[in-house]
Amino acid sequence: MSRQQREQVDAAIRARPPGNHESVEQFRAEFRETMANTLVPGGIRTEETKLGGRRALLVEPAADPGPGTILYFHGGAFVVGSPETALSPTGNLVTRTGFRAFSPDYRLAPEDPYPAAADDALGAYRDLLEQGVDPESIVFAGDSAGGGLSITTCLSARDAGLPLPAAVVVFSAWLDLTGTGESIVTRAAADPMFTPESLAGPAALYLAGQDPRQPLLSPAVSADFTGLPPLLLQVGTNEILLDDSTRAAARAREAGVDVILDVVAGVPHVFPCFTGMLDEADEALDRAGLFLRQRVSARR
Amino acid sequence: MSRQQREQVDAAIRARPPGNHESVEQFRAEFRETMANTLVPGGIRTEETKLGGRRALLVEPAADPGPGTILYFHGGAFVVGSPETALSPTGNLVTRTGFRAFSPDYRLAPEDPYPAAADDALGAYRDLLEQGVDPESIVFAGDSAGGGLSITTCLSARDAGLPLPAAVVVFSAWLDLTGTGESIVTRAAADPMFTPESLAGPAALYLAGQDPRQPLLSPAVSADFTGLPPLLLQVGTNEILLDDSTRAAARAREAGVDVILDVVAGVPHVFPCFTGMLDEADEALDRAGLFLRQRVSARR
Repeated sequence: MSRQQREQVDAAIRARPPGNHESVEQFRAEFRETMANTLVPGGIRTEETKLGGRRALLVEPAADPGPGTILYFHGGAFVVGSPETALSPTGNLVTRTGFRAFSPDYRLAPEDPYPAAADDALGAYRDLLEQGVDPESIVFAGDSAGGGLSITTCLSARDAGLPLPAAVVVFSAWLDLTGTGESIVTRAAADPMFTPESLAGPAALYLAGQDPRQPLLSPAVSADFTGLPPLLLQVGTNEILLDDSTRAAARAREAGVDVILDVVAGVPHVFPCFTGMLDEADEALDRAGLFLRQRVSARR
Repeated sequence: MSRQQREQVDAAIRARPPGNHESVEQFRAEFRETMANTLVPGGIRTEETKLGGRRALLVEPAADPGPGTILYFHGGAFVVGSPETALSPTGNLVTRTGFRAFSPDYRLAPEDPYPAAADDALGAYRDLLEQGVDPESIVFAGDSAGGGLSITTCLSARDAGLPLPAAVVVFSAWLDLTGTGESIVTRAAADPMFTPESLAGPAALYLAGQDPRQPLLSPAVSADFTGLPPLLLQVGTNEILLDDSTRAAARAREAGVDVILDVVAGVPHVFPCFTGMLDEADEALDRAGLFLRQRVSARR
């Protein structure tokens, strides 16, 4: 185990934690700058496209693409981020699966609060289905808020009677806008990135006064996971959001869903973004890649 | 997902459930017969050897062995089974990792109740260390009662000040001889193999009147997992032992241990033994193989 690497990453985040933002524009600029430091793998090519009427980034393996399509939802607390800020994990899933990925530029709060992002995510999936892409070749993936969208888009698709994708992989998914997980308190000192307060701000912008207990806002708290495809939840223990994943995994198990809860100790929020610094990032992405390939190639 | 395969396996077990045994000899004979139906993969060779003063089976890849050593503990409720009855999962881990495996023929109850099996398991590990095998190249694996031994041998090694192995993989580990997991009740109808009563018999033979709440008997209930190596727990939802794994995973997380809880819905106890009938068995073994290779090759 790379104890030393884990400590270095922790120290690097603590040396420059996400600040208090005077404006949403400042928050977005800072996030762009931070994520520009993540490593984008070689062996991919990107292209601007449209999906569900919104801009999207198509990320393809430079060599022959395999038989799958990843619908990747970027993180950013529903307020910041873009397909470009999540190009490191998106590209790493592409290189590890051979699948292409579409990363939709869904609408953000405060300009567009809930359900705008959720509607755009479902719209992107509907577009893939309408293009004739076999749902059994589609997988969802996402980090943080985008991990939340990965799961809630399955709930929405199920409730709309749409066929579901073959699998879902999420990195440190934000699955509880009520902020009631025990880890909000128990992991507060260990989390180098977030405080309960630093999440409450963007949550309020996305909620815009709406009840956070709804299943599409807090699936770890109130969603029925029945019928969902196999899930892989990867999360660190140095996260106040740890219990978003542990509670979602418990709900999935209770609902008879195949679910892998993959917890790495001593690493921060969305640790698979730290490839090149942290062996655990590459290893987690390798496990995610195997899981996605297994689910898309499974006999049915 | 192989819904149909899962149903076929369930029906096959229900058609011939483990019976009530008039004698320990009958129980052992029936278990040998049942396990003789599991598929042993090609590409391995076996050899009788000794480890810790006990008979053991050495299982090697027929081609060049890789850099790791698996210490595999067979299942059988501490009363039945042998290295030979677990040759399917042992061999499948060998072929998927390229590592050799030693499978010790530890003592069984009622002839030798607790702590005989635990002592033999630790003795086997000590022997490997005394032979000069690098602990960072050793992994423990086991199924059912042998999954329990995989974890409790880590606890004993830690408490004895020994270096720990690089990782542990367990299939449907029996980690609670108090029988107090919720799944003992909630999964009773779903479990085609066991009833609470069918486990109580062998548990009583192994306990021989001793307190089942001890950490080396019920680690899911009372053990401190601090310092343990990364764990992968694979388990099905059609098991009264499901919560042995969920509770152990929670304890491991709380103790800062890397832990993957890999739950497959609708499959029975030690489902990785059903290769050839159940795609989920092969897929789970592939995930276990990747996990073990990652941990042994990890930079330290």
